[in-house]
Amino acid sequence: MANAREAAIEYLESNDHRFLDEFKAFVAIPSVSTLVESEPAIQQAAEWVADHLKGIGVQEVRIIPTGGHPVVFGEVCSANPAAPTVLVYGHYDVQPAEPLELWMSGAFDAQVRGEHIYGRGVTDMKGQALAAINALEAILKTGQAPVHVKLLMEGEEEIGSKNMPDFIASHKDLLACDLVLNPDTGMASEVLPAITYALRGMAFFELWVHGPDHDLHSGTFGGVVHNPAVALCELVAGMHDAQGRVTLPGFYDRVREIGQEERDELARLGMDEAYFKAQTGAPAVWGEQGYTPLERVWVRPTLEINGMLSDFTGGGRKTVLPAWATAKISCRLVPDQDPEEVHQQMLAYLEAKAPPTITWKLHALGGSTAAISDRHSAGVLAMQDALQRVWKRQPVFRREGGSVPVVGLFQRLLGVESVNTGFSSPGDNMHSPNEKLHLGNWRKGMQALVHFFYNLAEAGHE
Amino acid sequence: MANAREAAIEYLESNDHRFLDEFKAFVAIPSVSTLVESEPAIQQAAEWVADHLKGIGVQEVRIIPTGGHPVVFGEVCSANPAAPTVLVYGHYDVQPAEPLELWMSGAFDAQVRGEHIYGRGVTDMKGQALAAINALEAILKTGQAPVHVKLLMEGEEEIGSKNMPDFIASHKDLLACDLVLNPDTGMASEVLPAITYALRGMAFFELWVHGPDHDLHSGTFGGVVHNPAVALCELVAGMHDAQGRVTLPGFYDRVREIGQEERDELARLGMDEAYFKAQTGAPAVWGEQGYTPLERVWVRPTLEINGMLSDFTGGGRKTVLPAWATAKISCRLVPDQDPEEVHQQMLAYLEAKAPPTITWKLHALGGSTAAISDRHSAGVLAMQDALQRVWKRQPVFRREGGSVPVVGLFQRLLGVESVNTGFSSPGDNMHSPNEKLHLGNWRKGMQALVHFFYNLAEAGHE
Repeated sequence: MANAREAAIEYLESNDHRFLDEFKAFVAIPSVSTLVESEPAIQQAAEWVADHLKGIGVQEVRIIPTGGHPVVFGEVCSANPAAPTVLVYGHYDVQPAEPLELWMSGAFDAQVRGEHIYGRGVTDMKGQALAAINALEAILKTGQAPVHVKLLMEGEEEIGSKNMPDFIASHKDLLACDLVLNPDTGMASEVLPAITYALRGMAFFELWVHGPDHDLHSGTFGGVVHNPAVALCELVAGMHDAQGRVTLPGFYDRVREIGQEERDELARLGMDEAYFKAQTGAPAVWGEQGYTPLERVWVRPTLEINGMLSDFTGGGRKTVLPAWATAKISCRLVPDQDPEEVHQQMLAYLEAKAPPTITWKLHALGGSTAAISDRHSAGVLAMQDALQRVWKRQPVFRREGGSVPVVGLFQRLLGVESVNTGFSSPGDNMHSPNEKLHLGNWRKGMQALVHFFYNLAEAGHE
Repeated sequence: MANAREAAIEYLESNDHRFLDEFKAFVAIPSVSTLVESEPAIQQAAEWVADHLKGIGVQEVRIIPTGGHPVVFGEVCSANPAAPTVLVYGHYDVQPAEPLELWMSGAFDAQVRGEHIYGRGVTDMKGQALAAINALEAILKTGQAPVHVKLLMEGEEEIGSKNMPDFIASHKDLLACDLVLNPDTGMASEVLPAITYALRGMAFFELWVHGPDHDLHSGTFGGVVHNPAVALCELVAGMHDAQGRVTLPGFYDRVREIGQEERDELARLGMDEAYFKAQTGAPAVWGEQGYTPLERVWVRPTLEINGMLSDFTGGGRKTVLPAWATAKISCRLVPDQDPEEVHQQMLAYLEAKAPPTITWKLHALGGSTAAISDRHSAGVLAMQDALQRVWKRQPVFRREGGSVPVVGLFQRLLGVESVNTGFSSPGDNMHSPNEKLHLGNWRKGMQALVHFFYNLAEAGHE
């Protein structure tokens, strides 16, 4: 199949301009899944993907409704019935682009500057999804599919893939496969490809604290009422102890401890304090004592405030004693924590700590379990070789601090492992203003995925 | 002068409808001093007051520019040159009306429902200011001014009267007087008039906490960076100790302790836990141990959060690790605290407590000293008698938790005491949605002020 690989890679090169135009067109659809007002854009993005798949020769393309945003599905059958089946997973939704004033070019008007393309979703994950689709196009236009390929693109990854459990459970035959390709993770650095074998899960909450039943004058009543913003601060401040550990009761009970071998491997990656300071711009690193910075983001669970609001935040002064304060709180989970258990732990914390001077409400906004997978499967070996061929470097095996809920779902519901890779870099401002993607890595990624599909076929023949 | 008093009070009664129409017209001007976009409304309100004063026969009416919003000044000379001079203080600016959706009728479209009028500023203090002006009108239209009256209406009370120190210092001759009438305080309850002999001061701050130099993905970086919202919560939570005391270093050093006699007097007012729970709707009272609820708001200094914001506060989830968090913080001060000293104490607290994992900035947004005055002056006795005549009850002497910065300024810069009273009640939603004023008390208040002016003249003749 050497000639077939070369032909597909040449095809990628000669269609580079068109691919970039299509990339920009995809980014231009503001498919922000968390916003109700984005409904039309979500629909438009699903249709764009479906039309695009039909255009490159994918069969059985369908937009399938779910309890939320629809799923796009398509299928390519290999001429070899014995070939393995790979399910390519992706998502067409993106994070909100706010704060818009910090973008140097329009969030939905993708712009190339230097070696990068900038725009919401270029790295997470419209660019990554297109890399897989373009690689498939190159194979189909220059030869035959060496393996069976199924494509599944969802529209709710950025809001926790909340309809995926039902969808996968009710479409087990449709999705049946030998392995999943998930290109929604990233490289270790802009020059070092990676395969991600573990992802963190998540539990997301919204906490409301109420005090007086209306806003009060801070002079007339200041001193005699527990200020809800102060009470919220006290509750949030108590969620970590002096060692940077999360204080929710039982939070660490199910956490798998990392072994010395893996600790040594992680230490070799060189992602140290200086690395994290450079990536974040924070004045110093922070976190749970007894763990390296990298272990804190890859191996340990965390608790973060994602947003906070109480009363008057305009310019100037307003001497009000607020009636309420609220915070968005999310935990990143590791094996074997369970999001619903963490929800119960948060409730237990609040029941124990919230004072009688305020009332509170906790809304659970969904979650997902963490995932950890076999580092020596046929799929992982096929990807390892593919990345090595293109980058001429041995890819690293890494965990990732983020969550890709479907990885755990595929493991649990379909009994299949995912090969997680991607071509974004840690400094790509994922979920932030000026999200970017290195175009050289994007192009290399497509080539690597061509090799991956052919490698899988060869492994399947052994 | 008994007949003159009666004639003035009859005039008030026969002009009641017009007074109410004028009141609504004054409220309709949205003179929110903290908003830049209110500049035209501020100007309009100043002109409305000036025109109104001219219309009732006040002389020398002028709109005088300051470093901020203008001051309206006017003067009425008594035929008796030996009569005392009273300076009537008021403000034509109001607090912001947000959150607008909680108003049952338009904030700037004053509406009478039952015995109350509702609208922003009806109680603080457009209604109170008009009560004094209408009382003066009644006297001028039915007789002669028994005392010299000067009127000073400022436009920045709700933003800390920041230009008043300069204005008073540079207009000492214009403002020269024997005492000040300040109708910007309130009644002890809807049936019990009061004279306020002490007011709290204020120190207002905006605190910013910065962590990473851009918003981060909470998966990729959660656990290794000190979340600025968490850090802000930790700093705010540390500003009170377990006894409800403010922990800024030296905060209580200059606080005058209350004597047993005054404690006993305050205890007799019946403003107990049940009272404060009913007024605020809070599930329980809170505050500094060792002091009654009423002492906490009248005699003790406090620290409140007036607003708080960090990153994503829209619907749904955004798994962001914020780059910043901010809080509006204000302290209510008592004699002999100094706002600039409290600013230094806040800086010292932050310097000692802020961890090296974040950076912070504190903006001081102004302040004022507390005021405490003589309870047996001629002015206070004149007001005590006036209130007693109308309400047929002995008025109570009270402190107030709020701040009226000019009271301290008049004391310091002009060497004169203020007689502080007013006709609003504790449940009038001052600074909150559905601000209201009891119209019966408003009308009684005008009558009482007629008596006050005549009482002053008689006291002056003795």
